Amino acid sequence: MATLFSRQGRCFPRRQINGLRISYRARCLQTSSLGSSQPPSRPPHEKTIFSGIQPTGVPHLGNYLGALREWVRLQNDNATDTKLIFSIVDLHALTVPQDASRLRQWRREAFATLLAIGLDPNRSTIFYQSAVSAHAELMWILSTVASMGYLSRMTQWKSKLKLPEDTGLEDSAAKSKLRLGLFSYPVLQAADILIHRATHVPVGEDQKQHIEFTRYTANSFNHLYGPIFPSPEALISPARRVMSLKEPNQKMSKSHPDDRSRILLTDSPEDIRKKIKLALTDSEPSISYDPVRRPGVSNLLEILCHMQSKPMSCEEVALEHRSTSIRALKELVADTLVDHLSGIRDRYFSLIQNQSDYVDSVAEAGAQAARANAESTMKTVRAAMGL
Amino acid sequence: MATLFSRQGRCFPRRQINGLRISYRARCLQTSSLGSSQPPSRPPHEKTIFSGIQPTGVPHLGNYLGALREWVRLQNDNATDTKLIFSIVDLHALTVPQDASRLRQWRREAFATLLAIGLDPNRSTIFYQSAVSAHAELMWILSTVASMGYLSRMTQWKSKLKLPEDTGLEDSAAKSKLRLGLFSYPVLQAADILIHRATHVPVGEDQKQHIEFTRYTANSFNHLYGPIFPSPEALISPARRVMSLKEPNQKMSKSHPDDRSRILLTDSPEDIRKKIKLALTDSEPSISYDPVRRPGVSNLLEILCHMQSKPMSCEEVALEHRSTSIRALKELVADTLVDHLSGIRDRYFSLIQNQSDYVDSVAEAGAQAARANAESTMKTVRAAMGL
Repeated sequence: MATLFSRQGRCFPRRQINGLRISYRARCLQTSSLGSSQPPSRPPHEKTIFSGIQPTGVPHLGNYLGALREWVRLQNDNATDTKLIFSIVDLHALTVPQDASRLRQWRREAFATLLAIGLDPNRSTIFYQSAVSAHAELMWILSTVASMGYLSRMTQWKSKLKLPEDTGLEDSAAKSKLRLGLFSYPVLQAADILIHRATHVPVGEDQKQHIEFTRYTANSFNHLYGPIFPSPEALISPARRVMSLKEPNQKMSKSHPDDRSRILLTDSPEDIRKKIKLALTDSEPSISYDPVRRPGVSNLLEILCHMQSKPMSCEEVALEHRSTSIRALKELVADTLVDHLSGIRDRYFSLIQNQSDYVDSVAEAGAQAARANAESTMKTVRAAMGL
Repeated sequence: MATLFSRQGRCFPRRQINGLRISYRARCLQTSSLGSSQPPSRPPHEKTIFSGIQPTGVPHLGNYLGALREWVRLQNDNATDTKLIFSIVDLHALTVPQDASRLRQWRREAFATLLAIGLDPNRSTIFYQSAVSAHAELMWILSTVASMGYLSRMTQWKSKLKLPEDTGLEDSAAKSKLRLGLFSYPVLQAADILIHRATHVPVGEDQKQHIEFTRYTANSFNHLYGPIFPSPEALISPARRVMSLKEPNQKMSKSHPDDRSRILLTDSPEDIRKKIKLALTDSEPSISYDPVRRPGVSNLLEILCHMQSKPMSCEEVALEHRSTSIRALKELVADTLVDHLSGIRDRYFSLIQNQSDYVDSVAEAGAQAARANAESTMKTVRAAMGL
């Protein structure tokens, strides 16, 4: 499950962060102001949080710490008049070739995961993007104001095709390989956000350019047709990049051939213990946090630091365990993971195996709520455009 | 009202065309076979005709003779098991800036015109494109298979921006002016056709490249996801280009500053007579058909030839009237036009002024029928893709 709006970044020293958990969290969640315009058509108290995640299989620990856990926190910490909307963005998954039955399975797994980690359908609207046609409708409408020049400068279509960052549209590889959907998906992403008139969008650092594009698109539309869309703000998640257990200089990833390189949220306690035990570290006798020189040990410290309830920096965690053996550190990390993930795992399998109708009925209710929300925006848009 | 799928082309000598009206029409309607694949998911007898027209004001004589009259003929001549679907493609109108209230008015005028010329809502499905969200939904899905290289070679975005035909996407004017919608609208057009699984699409000669693109897109999709879409065939209308009454070397157009240069379908008999009387011709004493040397007289002969019930070529019409004065020819043309258009004009004003609810209720019923037709395609598409 790759996050579309949120990515994980590496945790670097945060010595300045102290105090209670709630204040730690409040500090980590920086509000980025990428532009100056105000949400034009809503009173300032109307806060709507939107984010999306691509269905690419059972999420791993990196997905969870980098994005999903943050969604649950936003749900639980925001006042009840804040709208919370989370989408399985399956239309985005189609920008690369998909096997139909696998995608069908991954969508349900992604949905069940969102419930298992603690998103509450009574509080948050959770839905499949493809079930709400207004996302695609608004995408076309925004296409009529979205600049081709701006889109061609964006980086993700180039990185997905493994082309250099300065590749232009006249490049022969781009011409032969690039499909319109991969090129234009930032406009669909803008539509995802704007159709719900989201004011805040939790994203990883690497997705900031997409929120910037969304703001530019909203402003272009508003300039032509009147103040319809708020200019959304990026909620930049604290950097939390979990690395591969086998090659700790690379991000933990679904695509690594060795499945012992990653912890899935559905791994059994035995699997978790085995994978952590086999994690690549080094032969130094003590524990220290040094991501460059000691990436394996530092990765274990990061996992520990992000999973434990006490708010501490990775250096502080290292200091606390400096006399511990690596074997004992691994046991502690495994215990912490098992402790934290077993509830998620249990709920996940209960949802997937025993209550299959429940997931579908929650998805249908979520789609209905999202449709109603989106349709109220589309009514305003159609009226403003003369449709 | 600019036609999206159909354009008018100049009528050149068709000496070979003789015989009865019905056979003349059958000959004029060439079936173009641009590819070799068969409609995959329907029995061959299931014929569906689709076409669309942009709402850009009350249509003129060129729009009518070039496209709209052909739709009525297709409706009246096809067997009752042929599906007929005609759309006011208002989403396409948005690729250039629009004034909202003017667009709102133009949409209704376009709709009322289709009824006034003889499209029968009990036989043909007539609807506003923006009322059927599946057009935009399928557009996104087709975007994921549509090649950027192919789209960049298409000519219409260049001509709309007044750029040379060999302009590439890296051109600085293209980069600064081009909006995604203007670049990607052939994919929306493909979706318009494929969402209704149309087998036949009446278009003008200049739209053939778009049907070719639609066939390529359908084949690309079918190749990946199974045989969902028929490969539509272009029904090329006989070339009938009506020229400006003031500058008969240019096409009759809505954008010409002198409104005496065009005949609108809603013009009064007095206006028609006055405009034809003032039409630019020449000072030669006799009548002859020679579009290059005598464009004004030849344009009047073309109008006469296309409006009269006898199937004759423009040369034959010229020969019949060779001893007539230009003044008498103009009177005959005006009489013929008044005779043909007065019924359309009366029905149009009756629909627009006195039965406004009727137009809206027909549009709503058309949208419902189009939605049901489109949704059955989307169900198949979603299942094939794993959504």
